[in-house]
Amino acid sequence: MISKATLSRLPEYLEYLRQQESFVTDISATAIAKGLHLGEVQVRKDLSSVCGNGKPKTGYNIDDLKSSIEHALGKKQKSEAVIIGAGKLGKALLSFDGFSEYGLLVRTAFDSSLEVIGDNILPMEELASYCSLHQVEIGILTVPPEYAQEASEKMVKAGIKAILCFSAKSLNLPDGIAVHYENLALSLAHLKQKTV
Amino acid sequence: MISKATLSRLPEYLEYLRQQESFVTDISATAIAKGLHLGEVQVRKDLSSVCGNGKPKTGYNIDDLKSSIEHALGKKQKSEAVIIGAGKLGKALLSFDGFSEYGLLVRTAFDSSLEVIGDNILPMEELASYCSLHQVEIGILTVPPEYAQEASEKMVKAGIKAILCFSAKSLNLPDGIAVHYENLALSLAHLKQKTV
Repeated sequence: MISKATLSRLPEYLEYLRQQESFVTDISATAIAKGLHLGEVQVRKDLSSVCGNGKPKTGYNIDDLKSSIEHALGKKQKSEAVIIGAGKLGKALLSFDGFSEYGLLVRTAFDSSLEVIGDNILPMEELASYCSLHQVEIGILTVPPEYAQEASEKMVKAGIKAILCFSAKSLNLPDGIAVHYENLALSLAHLKQKTV
Repeated sequence: MISKATLSRLPEYLEYLRQQESFVTDISATAIAKGLHLGEVQVRKDLSSVCGNGKPKTGYNIDDLKSSIEHALGKKQKSEAVIIGAGKLGKALLSFDGFSEYGLLVRTAFDSSLEVIGDNILPMEELASYCSLHQVEIGILTVPPEYAQEASEKMVKAGIKAILCFSAKSLNLPDGIAVHYENLALSLAHLKQKTV
């Protein structure tokens, strides 16, 4: 598993490699570190977690390294994620265009309220069939906290294995389901301490 | 500075203390840990970072402990944060009601597009005067990536000292300005690895 910190730097490496490939065929971690003003130890560690160690002296073949990074970023086989809860946050995420950089396709939300059903917002009843048809295993949970547990159980039944949860309430789910809590209020509160 | 992990558990402790205060006047970390099914070492550490060590045998006076937790959560002196960029995400955060649990008031957004100006969305030109009038030192940055640097500089000029940034691009700001990057695509990409 690639760390979140490494993952966050991969798009930058990829962009740099694309700039360099018209000039050279091989590149060393040292050269990349210099070019991007990053620490050499960090770059070396990042690249080795994605593509093993480079060759002594020459380093990495640019094509191979690009290909490995693209693979790690999921560019080669896009994964689809669905949004559960088409309130304001759910809709905002539905129109957010930053997911594709990490090989993620987010194009459909589900909601139990008939009023919001539309082009890319489907009724909750269709979640399971949609996930099965499109092989969706990732869900973004943006329902109000009081509905989070119930909605998450429906997600698990629909085959979802990983949940990005925007509700602060802990979900009680079977083993093997990965949950990451994105608590925006907490991030802000933690940041606030730095202003005191 | 209280860690993010401790901070995330404080609302739970507070709720538990409120339930207990009609029965007892003092409570030990051991009893709280038992009541909330948490590890005793963790609870002891959390409470000591907020309220020092409890007394041997009796533990903490519930009133004192509640008061310390409320203080740490900013319940006693609310801080206001403003949103810069009233696109879909900015508007979603403007209507999000989870901030108050951490003593944060978020009621106004700023945007440079005249079309979105309204009740609680003001023009960027008014940012500095608003922040000065309401003593705002925290900002949430939700503009498109290409405007993030410019907007963040205006925030700093307006007296903002801490920025929660939803753009993946690094901001180049003076020392002393705290920035926390909230990269939702990255969180999702990291989670995706757990489905493989």
